[in-house]
Amino acid sequence: MEYRKIKDEDNDGGTLSNDIENLRGIGFSGVASVSNVPPREQAKWKRKTVVTVALTFLTSSQAILIVWSKRAGKYEYSVTTANFLVETLKCALSLAALARIWKSEGVTEDNRLSTTLDEVIVYPIPALLYLVKNLLQYYIFAYVDAPGYQILKNLNIISTGVLYSIILKKKLSDIQWAAFILLCAGCTTAQLNSRSDHVLQTSLPGWIMAIVMALLSGFAGVYTEAIIKKRPSRNINVQNFWLYISGMAFNAIAILIQDFDAVMNKGFFHGYSIITTLMILNHALSGIAVSMVMKYADNIVKVYSTSVAMLLTAVVSVFLFGFNLTLAFFLGATVVSVSVYLHSAGKLQR
Amino acid sequence: MEYRKIKDEDNDGGTLSNDIENLRGIGFSGVASVSNVPPREQAKWKRKTVVTVALTFLTSSQAILIVWSKRAGKYEYSVTTANFLVETLKCALSLAALARIWKSEGVTEDNRLSTTLDEVIVYPIPALLYLVKNLLQYYIFAYVDAPGYQILKNLNIISTGVLYSIILKKKLSDIQWAAFILLCAGCTTAQLNSRSDHVLQTSLPGWIMAIVMALLSGFAGVYTEAIIKKRPSRNINVQNFWLYISGMAFNAIAILIQDFDAVMNKGFFHGYSIITTLMILNHALSGIAVSMVMKYADNIVKVYSTSVAMLLTAVVSVFLFGFNLTLAFFLGATVVSVSVYLHSAGKLQR
Repeated sequence: MEYRKIKDEDNDGGTLSNDIENLRGIGFSGVASVSNVPPREQAKWKRKTVVTVALTFLTSSQAILIVWSKRAGKYEYSVTTANFLVETLKCALSLAALARIWKSEGVTEDNRLSTTLDEVIVYPIPALLYLVKNLLQYYIFAYVDAPGYQILKNLNIISTGVLYSIILKKKLSDIQWAAFILLCAGCTTAQLNSRSDHVLQTSLPGWIMAIVMALLSGFAGVYTEAIIKKRPSRNINVQNFWLYISGMAFNAIAILIQDFDAVMNKGFFHGYSIITTLMILNHALSGIAVSMVMKYADNIVKVYSTSVAMLLTAVVSVFLFGFNLTLAFFLGATVVSVSVYLHSAGKLQR
Repeated sequence: MEYRKIKDEDNDGGTLSNDIENLRGIGFSGVASVSNVPPREQAKWKRKTVVTVALTFLTSSQAILIVWSKRAGKYEYSVTTANFLVETLKCALSLAALARIWKSEGVTEDNRLSTTLDEVIVYPIPALLYLVKNLLQYYIFAYVDAPGYQILKNLNIISTGVLYSIILKKKLSDIQWAAFILLCAGCTTAQLNSRSDHVLQTSLPGWIMAIVMALLSGFAGVYTEAIIKKRPSRNINVQNFWLYISGMAFNAIAILIQDFDAVMNKGFFHGYSIITTLMILNHALSGIAVSMVMKYADNIVKVYSTSVAMLLTAVVSVFLFGFNLTLAFFLGATVVSVSVYLHSAGKLQR
């Protein structure tokens, strides 16, 4: 793996990569460890906590906005234009953050925008993987219905764990693996409803597609972490800028293919509402939070964060939309909570 | 607690109680530890495994016999006479085992049947507790339906764990506690069906009764373990004999109260079939297996054993009765399996 090669060079070169190693050692819910670590580690742990909590709340409110927009009626706008705007907004926010940093710290090797082809060549790959996954999404509905797909999407949890440990060569303890299986089972349990059993009748091509999509999604996440962590000292806003520029390019192509006529006839912003604007804003912020979690934490934290967000969403929906919580939800939430505890309790001794 | 007092005396008196302590150290699924322990410990571990596996299969086939007898029609016989026969059979089997031991080893202080009032006075208590629990069972159905009661019965798992650690003063590690919560959540998940959500509408008196019943059941189990382990060198068949004599007495009273007229008019064995006979045989053997697990293992092993039996029953029912396994069952079975692993992995270091 290219990631490993460059990681090793970092190790030869200095202490930067060690920072990241130490950072991982502090752990996901490392409240207990904080008292034993120096102030610098504490600052890192705080940063990690802030980005994780931000991702959890942004993901949770994202799901709530989706329910809200569905209640308000069908999507009237072109999804591709919204996606393009999300990428554009993320780019703009990264540039704004960079401008502030340049003002306070000056332009350095680590925060300058210009780059080498060698550094930037890998940045379009995650965007490309997500594009392929999204294209497959249209075809899987020939084999699975929408609630069944929601259930199968939990395979992402397992695929992310497996690819994370294989590709990034990071070891999870046996207890942490058990916790990861529980996370997948718990999330699925929490989403059970009377029609969930249909998913067991999924045909072989349906299963294969679901597994391929889970692998694509897991690989995209792990690959993003790899390229963001390849140069730990590199400013995250520069890395984000190049990631999102790729996203803008791919989404521009998607507009041309899917919605060219609609945009030409009805305009780029046709059908936009306040909810649409809020959703674009939310998606942009969530996207940045994901990058931050990849930089300062890892894919495992990301998976836990979005899983907890799913539970939060359900609880908030009780108050906002009068949803009822099922017994399955309580059981699933219990299993997810125990999983979070075990992930922290099962940390490898270093 | 009386149990503790006598346990302490044992410690003062010699090594017998230490045997039991060591036995516990070998653990529930201690395959990994076997290679490091002396032959005597290995023999104990084997005995523990045999009784645990026996209990699992007997409990599993018990549930299958119940389904079978329900399919064959309603209960035509008096349940109280069947219960009385179960206790009588257990008594007879204990005496038969004792007779063989007396022949081979002679009568010793540990295997003689005669006893002191001080030893025997506590033996009716578990039988009495179960009687009270079974009486309550008639009243709880005013508040909960039968499927809801099946779900609520999983509270037994938690009550057994809590009472086990409080009364027997045995420590479970944090991971083992997490595993125990998972066992309860997993068993409940595996039993979920479309009507399970009713249980969330259970009224306060229903919840209180369910919790009281769980505590009674858990206390009866833990108390049985306490009196059986009070004198570790005492032959288990003598202890069983006195336990089951109490059971016979209480069930004789139950016949007089509930089924006196039916027995007088239609005879003691009215409505007995082959299935009834098999069920009585199975209940007797399961009862003896429970005592053996209490003697050579503990209540925690018993709970795991009966939980795994529940899963086995469901799988066997697919082949025997054409039942369908639900997605909830697979998720629950996954969580229970991880729980079994964690119980073993989370063993306290000694």
